[in-house]
Amino acid sequence: MTVVNRFNEDKYDKIMELAKRRGFFWPSYEIYGGVAGFYDLGPLGVRMKDKIINLWRNYFVVRQQPLVVEIETPVIGPSRVYEASGHLEHFTDPIVECTKCGRKFRADHLIEDVLHVNAERLSPEEMTKLIREHDIRCPACGGILSEVKKFNLLFQTTIGPYAQNRGFLRPEAAQGMFVNFKKVYEVMRQRLPLGIAQIGRVARNEISPRQGIIRLREFTIAEIEFFFDPEDPWHEGLLDEMLARVEHRKLRILRAEAKKRDETKPEEFGVREAIEEKVIITPWLAYWMAVARDFIIELGVDYSDMYFEEKLPEERAHYAAQTFDQLVRVSRLGWLEVSGHAYRTDYDLSRHMKYSGKDLTVFRQFKEPRRIRKKIVLVNPAWVGRTFKSKAKEILGAIKSLDANEVERMLKEKGVIEVSGVTIPAEHVKIVEKEEKISGRRFLPHVAEPSFGIERLIFVVLDKAYREKEGRVVLSIPRRIAPIDVAVFPLVRDERLVKIAKDVWRRLIEAGYYAIYDDDGSIGRRYARIDEIGVPLAITVDHATLEENTVTIRDRDTWRQVRVHLNKIEEAVRMFLQGAEPDLLTSI
Amino acid sequence: MTVVNRFNEDKYDKIMELAKRRGFFWPSYEIYGGVAGFYDLGPLGVRMKDKIINLWRNYFVVRQQPLVVEIETPVIGPSRVYEASGHLEHFTDPIVECTKCGRKFRADHLIEDVLHVNAERLSPEEMTKLIREHDIRCPACGGILSEVKKFNLLFQTTIGPYAQNRGFLRPEAAQGMFVNFKKVYEVMRQRLPLGIAQIGRVARNEISPRQGIIRLREFTIAEIEFFFDPEDPWHEGLLDEMLARVEHRKLRILRAEAKKRDETKPEEFGVREAIEEKVIITPWLAYWMAVARDFIIELGVDYSDMYFEEKLPEERAHYAAQTFDQLVRVSRLGWLEVSGHAYRTDYDLSRHMKYSGKDLTVFRQFKEPRRIRKKIVLVNPAWVGRTFKSKAKEILGAIKSLDANEVERMLKEKGVIEVSGVTIPAEHVKIVEKEEKISGRRFLPHVAEPSFGIERLIFVVLDKAYREKEGRVVLSIPRRIAPIDVAVFPLVRDERLVKIAKDVWRRLIEAGYYAIYDDDGSIGRRYARIDEIGVPLAITVDHATLEENTVTIRDRDTWRQVRVHLNKIEEAVRMFLQGAEPDLLTSI
Repeated sequence: MTVVNRFNEDKYDKIMELAKRRGFFWPSYEIYGGVAGFYDLGPLGVRMKDKIINLWRNYFVVRQQPLVVEIETPVIGPSRVYEASGHLEHFTDPIVECTKCGRKFRADHLIEDVLHVNAERLSPEEMTKLIREHDIRCPACGGILSEVKKFNLLFQTTIGPYAQNRGFLRPEAAQGMFVNFKKVYEVMRQRLPLGIAQIGRVARNEISPRQGIIRLREFTIAEIEFFFDPEDPWHEGLLDEMLARVEHRKLRILRAEAKKRDETKPEEFGVREAIEEKVIITPWLAYWMAVARDFIIELGVDYSDMYFEEKLPEERAHYAAQTFDQLVRVSRLGWLEVSGHAYRTDYDLSRHMKYSGKDLTVFRQFKEPRRIRKKIVLVNPAWVGRTFKSKAKEILGAIKSLDANEVERMLKEKGVIEVSGVTIPAEHVKIVEKEEKISGRRFLPHVAEPSFGIERLIFVVLDKAYREKEGRVVLSIPRRIAPIDVAVFPLVRDERLVKIAKDVWRRLIEAGYYAIYDDDGSIGRRYARIDEIGVPLAITVDHATLEENTVTIRDRDTWRQVRVHLNKIEEAVRMFLQGAEPDLLTSI
Repeated sequence: MTVVNRFNEDKYDKIMELAKRRGFFWPSYEIYGGVAGFYDLGPLGVRMKDKIINLWRNYFVVRQQPLVVEIETPVIGPSRVYEASGHLEHFTDPIVECTKCGRKFRADHLIEDVLHVNAERLSPEEMTKLIREHDIRCPACGGILSEVKKFNLLFQTTIGPYAQNRGFLRPEAAQGMFVNFKKVYEVMRQRLPLGIAQIGRVARNEISPRQGIIRLREFTIAEIEFFFDPEDPWHEGLLDEMLARVEHRKLRILRAEAKKRDETKPEEFGVREAIEEKVIITPWLAYWMAVARDFIIELGVDYSDMYFEEKLPEERAHYAAQTFDQLVRVSRLGWLEVSGHAYRTDYDLSRHMKYSGKDLTVFRQFKEPRRIRKKIVLVNPAWVGRTFKSKAKEILGAIKSLDANEVERMLKEKGVIEVSGVTIPAEHVKIVEKEEKISGRRFLPHVAEPSFGIERLIFVVLDKAYREKEGRVVLSIPRRIAPIDVAVFPLVRDERLVKIAKDVWRRLIEAGYYAIYDDDGSIGRRYARIDEIGVPLAITVDHATLEENTVTIRDRDTWRQVRVHLNKIEEAVRMFLQGAEPDLLTSI
């Protein structure tokens, strides 16, 4: 955590106020007093979320064709799935109850608040001990606290009319991909590596969420389960080809071993360097971290305001062999996790294979069948039969399972081989070399998982976009994800200007844009209103429009204005939203 | 219901097989034996759903700017919301349990299966009576059935660690808009009429869903709550302006009164005609039905395969004053409901106002303050005081509440007025006219609601797109909503052709398209594979490409091919997907 100053505190409050007043987001169910952990997205929030999701899709699905495909699975799942996934057992937080007033608290947070120690990974018994030793009491009534228990964070329900059919709301989209892996693998004509993406709602029944839109009981997740061959993650040059797209990128990483030494400063690694030096233990995880880096930067985050923090073994989820959090520096909250990158190995597939009894392995054919030479031990079976009679069968079986090299050694040392309590002289034993053809391998793929919470990103974008300029607020949201694309104004409420402005506005709507028309108040006030919600450009129809058929286009960030012909407006808007400088628009 | 023939039965099965094999959709949790009422969307299903949603947004949000805005609210809601909405009381299906084996059945369906009567709207008591009278037994074990009870279809859960905090999964998105109406109204600077749209997951705990992807326990809904002034739904010409966009449309409507006469043939009405003849009792509902008509036609449904059926009062949900289902004719299932159009009046807002204690009314300012002339009764107060002493105050109050016209009548008839048991002679009474200024009205808006289930539309699109041509399957999915935009093939696996084809494919991905590259098998087999999943166009690189830098573009539906220059491919694809004929592409 960094020390945040008063300016950032103010900024956070200002963003929250703006978000609510202009319609990005607000707490849900406010007319009923609100329910902690639930937020609504208002008209601007929905538009920006939709654009962030499309950008995510572009980075993680479209550009990754044909390696990644997207599916959609239900929020509600049967209990068997979450037994198999381990969530019924492991997806818990410690809880403690006041024996006097009955209030419940998250035990680790309570201990941290009182003792200022990190209690995150203590066992319930250790927490109970701390509470007793320091006589920690109920913060509400001073009552004595119960023992610390585990509280499962899955929302539970019942599917259908039979009470025994328990169902759960998924806490991550991942299990939908795991239970479907084999099916999608078949649909995709047995492609491996194979990424399965999903974007959808998840729910986590937090004990007492307190961080507004940052920690929600229900939110939208965007994640990929990327399945690959653990023995050949490079997949015959494919990974090299993918890494070539990102290899000039640097990743700032705070390693677990550095954290243990109380270091807090991340080191910088090239993507390939992080793989070669085993900083990231499986190479596809590194690839996805590099993609995640680019994606977050496009949301308006500086490289220096972002790093990856490796989790300590005791901080990792039950399914992960290595995990990195992608952190972004934001106002008030300091370093905020925006994505998680977990090496889930074959944990989930092997569990579902066990619980479902279905074969989830894949068969990977070698490019060409491999011929391997193999030594085989041969013993004259007629002689064995004659010599050992009823024991012959057992002895022949035992010889078959002998290792040929071991037999060679015995023959060399003793001149006989000993097996099943009998001795066979060298003259009856022959060692031959044989060639065998193997066409492939059967195995469970391993998984690298990048996972993003989308609502958090809305906050991050607002935090990074927030500026104050000449006493007014300007949201410099990246043009591609600004909720409203364009605004159209008549300079004044003159009937002729109004008519042209409304025509332009309707043309832009016809072209599929989200567009504001506004003729209420002074032009300065109207510019101020759209700057505050980050509309990237404004088109103003003025008296010159009547004479020369041009309008002004104003850039939100520089306030620079250029004139563009009425016929070229759609093209100018398209170019501008794709990143063109205002001056470039005059030449179309 | 229409009689469906064997061809349509086959077609339905073929579509289901295709959907599963190629990855449109399949039953969820199949490795665990499946859970009824849940379906997954595969890679093609997700892409098509996303495009259907975007098309819906285009029709119902983008083109309706600035009247409609979109919000997003949680799936989980506190019980108070569903008490207020009436769902805890009314959102039920009748259920019956076998007293021997414990199996549970939907009572009306069971009665319909056995007695072939429509039991949909019978009371539990009436159903129990029928079951007893006809000795209907458990279809599984022949056991005696229990009394019919109501089973609530809300999925229930607990929010947070306190068992008493019941939560429910929303069965419709609507309540999110109702509880937020006042907030969105303020954010939108008190605009009325105001449409609030939402697209999101909903869940309904059906007793025993049996219709695959048609009747799901969890699905995606797209709906609008459109709030308007019930005393002036025309909103000073605004509705006229909106109706002008759709007024040449015809709507086929089967009215409730016609259904009562056992008629099954819908009548045709112009949109305005349906309003003027009160076929549709509130005009905004008619507007949205016309938009819904256009939207469904763009999905590939013929006008003649669609009509609106008015629900009988006993068929309507508890909140609706009039409801129409939009029905589409599909194979096997006959007429399938694809959307509902309900006039919800102020039912929901008034309930939430009552349950929350918050004022949800709006104040609508008149364009200009209205001056109204009002007669007022004046009595000389000094005389009243002198004459009636301690009773004077009461008498003056009573006079104030008298209607001036009534006083005039009394004076004319009797020469005195009688009030509070005393008589006042005409000479002490004066009637004066006074002008009063009223600036507006305070009221609860009424609501028209169009509501669509998206997963059903995926099935409808496949059903309408399915063709067989020369013994192969061609899915003629409308180009705008085809899951994969384009395929790129080298004619043969020649290194030079492969290189160019891969370059073209990557350029199209860079431009944001979903694109297939395929060089596996004969070109005929590759065309067949993409026709079967409805890829609208294929680009083939052949030997002529090497000489003249052109490729062929093949139209899925006509199999016609034209040659286009390598440099013009992005533009050709864009134009083609927007609807251009193949021959037009040669001229760019």
